[in-house]
Amino acid sequence: MSAVDCPVRDVLDRIGDKWSTLILGTLAAGPHRFSAVQRTVPDISKRMLTQTFRDLERDGLVARTVFPTKPPSVEYRLTPLGQTILEPLDVLVRWADRSQADIEAARQAFDTAS
Amino acid sequence: MSAVDCPVRDVLDRIGDKWSTLILGTLAAGPHRFSAVQRTVPDISKRMLTQTFRDLERDGLVARTVFPTKPPSVEYRLTPLGQTILEPLDVLVRWADRSQADIEAARQAFDTAS
Repeated sequence: MSAVDCPVRDVLDRIGDKWSTLILGTLAAGPHRFSAVQRTVPDISKRMLTQTFRDLERDGLVARTVFPTKPPSVEYRLTPLGQTILEPLDVLVRWADRSQADIEAARQAFDTAS
Repeated sequence: MSAVDCPVRDVLDRIGDKWSTLILGTLAAGPHRFSAVQRTVPDISKRMLTQTFRDLERDGLVARTVFPTKPPSVEYRLTPLGQTILEPLDVLVRWADRSQADIEAARQAFDTAS
């Protein structure tokens, strides 16, 4: 992981983004309309959600379908490639879940000491 | 992963940071002096490296030892908690490695279409 121009690093940088992780986690349950994802992640701005969807679509992880209703509605779903990241993300989420108490204790000790 | 105040989300947000991942990956090989990590990740600024080490230390993932040389030298190493994140990170790195060609192809198709 040390090469400066390593493509893996670029990929990690994109996926490691908090909003990407949350949106991929939401779409793991099935296709969602834009507004439904917005309700699941209420503190994301509309602009940031639009940008994150666009990045995920560009990376080939999320597919976007526009339905010709009036007004048009837009649905997002995981692509087959997007499905493959769920297991690695889940491993990381489970680690975070297991470790959060230790991390919180470490933070309190650090803040007390400094 | 949908709760707004979920502590797991906070942990992921910290660990998902590109620099944290790279530094943890460097320390996986053993303890390093500050300057040695800087050589491994040459495009990180000294200020950002200092801040990232401080965050990782506060999270209890990295331990800092100051040696009373002149001038003092500082060594960083993974804590036992820090060791436990290597496997989840490795799962994600291996996914990124497997998927980078697909992601690159998706990006080119997206950029051509738009």
